[in-house]
Amino acid sequence: METSAEEYSKEDQSSVAASGHPVKPAPVIIDGIPINNLTRKVLDSQSFLSQSMNIILEDAVKKSTDVKEKVCEWRSPEELKELLDLELRDEGESESEILQRCRDTIRYSVKTTHPRFFNQLFAGMEPYSLVASVIVEALKPSLYTYEVAPVFTLVENAVLRKMMELIGWEEGGDGIFCAGGSMSNMYALNLARYHHCPDVKEHGLSAAPRLVIFTSEECHYSIAKSAALLGIGTKNVYVVASDERGKMIPSALEELIETAKKEGTIPFFVNATAGTTVLGAFDPLEEIADICEKHNIWLHVDACWGGAALMSDRHKHLLKGIHRANSVAWNPHKMLMVCLQCSAFLVRDKTSLLQDCHSSRASYLFQQDKFYDVSYDTGDKSVQCSRKPDSFKFWLMWKALGKGELKQRVDRAFAMAKYFAEQIKQREGFQLLMEPECTNVCFWYIPPSLRNLQGHPKFWKKLHTVAPAIKERMMKVGSMMVGYQTHKDRVNFFRMVLVSPQVSTEDADFVLDEMHNLGKDL
Amino acid sequence: METSAEEYSKEDQSSVAASGHPVKPAPVIIDGIPINNLTRKVLDSQSFLSQSMNIILEDAVKKSTDVKEKVCEWRSPEELKELLDLELRDEGESESEILQRCRDTIRYSVKTTHPRFFNQLFAGMEPYSLVASVIVEALKPSLYTYEVAPVFTLVENAVLRKMMELIGWEEGGDGIFCAGGSMSNMYALNLARYHHCPDVKEHGLSAAPRLVIFTSEECHYSIAKSAALLGIGTKNVYVVASDERGKMIPSALEELIETAKKEGTIPFFVNATAGTTVLGAFDPLEEIADICEKHNIWLHVDACWGGAALMSDRHKHLLKGIHRANSVAWNPHKMLMVCLQCSAFLVRDKTSLLQDCHSSRASYLFQQDKFYDVSYDTGDKSVQCSRKPDSFKFWLMWKALGKGELKQRVDRAFAMAKYFAEQIKQREGFQLLMEPECTNVCFWYIPPSLRNLQGHPKFWKKLHTVAPAIKERMMKVGSMMVGYQTHKDRVNFFRMVLVSPQVSTEDADFVLDEMHNLGKDL
Repeated sequence: METSAEEYSKEDQSSVAASGHPVKPAPVIIDGIPINNLTRKVLDSQSFLSQSMNIILEDAVKKSTDVKEKVCEWRSPEELKELLDLELRDEGESESEILQRCRDTIRYSVKTTHPRFFNQLFAGMEPYSLVASVIVEALKPSLYTYEVAPVFTLVENAVLRKMMELIGWEEGGDGIFCAGGSMSNMYALNLARYHHCPDVKEHGLSAAPRLVIFTSEECHYSIAKSAALLGIGTKNVYVVASDERGKMIPSALEELIETAKKEGTIPFFVNATAGTTVLGAFDPLEEIADICEKHNIWLHVDACWGGAALMSDRHKHLLKGIHRANSVAWNPHKMLMVCLQCSAFLVRDKTSLLQDCHSSRASYLFQQDKFYDVSYDTGDKSVQCSRKPDSFKFWLMWKALGKGELKQRVDRAFAMAKYFAEQIKQREGFQLLMEPECTNVCFWYIPPSLRNLQGHPKFWKKLHTVAPAIKERMMKVGSMMVGYQTHKDRVNFFRMVLVSPQVSTEDADFVLDEMHNLGKDL
Repeated sequence: METSAEEYSKEDQSSVAASGHPVKPAPVIIDGIPINNLTRKVLDSQSFLSQSMNIILEDAVKKSTDVKEKVCEWRSPEELKELLDLELRDEGESESEILQRCRDTIRYSVKTTHPRFFNQLFAGMEPYSLVASVIVEALKPSLYTYEVAPVFTLVENAVLRKMMELIGWEEGGDGIFCAGGSMSNMYALNLARYHHCPDVKEHGLSAAPRLVIFTSEECHYSIAKSAALLGIGTKNVYVVASDERGKMIPSALEELIETAKKEGTIPFFVNATAGTTVLGAFDPLEEIADICEKHNIWLHVDACWGGAALMSDRHKHLLKGIHRANSVAWNPHKMLMVCLQCSAFLVRDKTSLLQDCHSSRASYLFQQDKFYDVSYDTGDKSVQCSRKPDSFKFWLMWKALGKGELKQRVDRAFAMAKYFAEQIKQREGFQLLMEPECTNVCFWYIPPSLRNLQGHPKFWKKLHTVAPAIKERMMKVGSMMVGYQTHKDRVNFFRMVLVSPQVSTEDADFVLDEMHNLGKDL
């Protein structure tokens, strides 16, 4: 597929036609390639872009969020491979073929913005955040220096400051947006380690004492993943028992710290979770903070999920004591509906610990002889090099909605969870695991055939197969998506996640009706 | 800013009006919040979305890539804070105010897609990739399970396989897309460590021997950052000398490995760079691979920048031997112009090392009793939890252009670098650091006042101040952006990065003319 020099010469010359007259310069050819003409298919793309944007607005926004449409059009991997023609070839395709590929991609993708998608800790369509993310895609910024991303550098700073204010750090602090909550939690672990023994940055852990960390059995899996990655080791993650509601038991934490000290290890990090992934439990932060202070241990709060409650006067008591944390992870891409991803890592420290921990002072980015205040070059606080300005998606949305509407959104999600739990209690064949503390509601659906078996030895074994069977059917029908899992000795149950203000009681009722429809013959 | 129930009742009822008739259900109120009506400002957004998309297409695509417009409209941090009104308040703003914020954000942002932006290792506007990224933003997928991201799971797999084919791994391998090249390099280090001593995942490094790694002094800073993060320590990064062109000296590598062994350390990882950040040098992969094989050390190739040359029959010799690497990092978001970010981490191993190294088997995501083949749930290969389907931005672009045009794009960038270097040699007052090996060209501009000082003791000291002064002026004029840095004992010089086919010889000539205009009085 060589393009000849003659073909090139027919192309758009707009960059050299500044005078308004068409210009025909003599061709400059290097290694047989004419380089004073511009490559086709790049500048001439306005009509393609307009057409695609229309398809996206119609299919990926309007139709995808329409409750009358399917949440997903299920195809097995084998069928979907056939349908999509995935292979990458030497020849390109026409614009109309590419537009069809856009339509197909949208068609066979799961509609996570659909009002009946309850499968993850995010949902719903946020138009302001979406627009912000498209601006970011079009501008292609990377957030390391003020000179390359002036607006986004300042926006990140403003958003971080506001989030710290909500946490209650009256004197501010420091922070950075990361590519997801797992990375924010990882930053916390690394920063706590650096704070405790800064030598590790240079000398590594092989000469260090055994460092141990503490987290509840209900915590997110990123804590263990980070411990493995950072060379701490998953066996040095001491797992604290939690109560029947999924909250860390402070006395169990303190006992475990004492045990660890007796073993000659160095406890340096406690992770408390504000809104656990499955049960939505909030660890008792005040009591945990007391213990951390007493033992001089870094307290990190993983508020990726539950942090949104800080927006609400009614629900922020769930995070009482969070201002005493040394660091916080909080994902506005979850309950606040910012486009994926948007995860803040926040630190109370104001002595440039974050910068010192991660910096490497690359000469080609962080020159110290720049003509502006280089404290605005925040990239060396990050482990990433190129980094997307995720804070902008939160900022523009907040500007449009105000805190007032964000607060309402959170209150509404909590109210919806309460409503949904009530319905479960009132309906025959549904059983709540426990009263929800956050906006995830966990429950079993018990088909008629099992209702008289309660107490029978086979009951739980049979019930265990119900959720996967219903899940398969709902995916194939495409009517809704709700996740299931086991938990400790509990057999498979559903976890309904309520986030989006585009969900009404009708949708909640539909979920329960549909579960019964799909599962009543099991 | 409470909204009353009456206000809610005026809102859009479309989700319950499936019959076509307006429906007025009795209000369901929980904690004072009506939850059977849908929140305003979310569903009613079609006109806002259309208007914003028009602004984005006009200002952030068309105008931002127009050579007659400025690359940046410089404002100091203080001025820009005034202009932007960054504060986040309780009250929201009107749609017209938000549209103005979109315009302002675009206006004061640096136009990295402008034909005169040469400041980083990415540039240019790629319409197909842009459309793909907007589809992703609108659909809000997260790539951990097939059930939530069926299309993007298969696309990622297809793209990884094609990239492995280009590397020359005829029997395939494994891989995953990461949030940037730093993360891809970090994965390599972690995987190599797990391969060498799998116990570290559980037991950590405190009981392990001293592990050391090798990389050239020209490598990307993410290698040292990763060593710090992973608990290996920056002092255990043994820095191999490179030759005057910036290429790792294989004999120096072997000597250093012998030294390390004599010190009683365990050498387990060599990073070779294919396209260094500043000089664009390619390390000699065949000779390095020989040494790694002999000493049984994991060979990682950081081809984030130079990997694009694998597309070209003319230039792929630069990476000769890459198929012998154990792992490769390669960023299509650089020379191939995929929208930020798009970084592949590729592994030759086929024994599920990647999965074993990173997995934690979260019960709520990676259920084993699903109704489809769970080997398509690739999320546990990643350290991230939610992860964006960056491969799709590469896939759709490749489908549109074909390998033929991608190859031409790479050949053209190399030809453009050759042209630019020729111009420097021909012009008075310009001096090349060295012949370019990749498409970054490093050079000094020597103002007339210094031209007779060559050889004088003050020459280099004075020249050192020239690039920062010209940089300040070009930013304030807004005519172009080119980065500068020092390198070893070399004083500040410019690094011109040629990537985009939207750049012509006229733009290259302009850079040299403009540097002279801006710096001739220095």
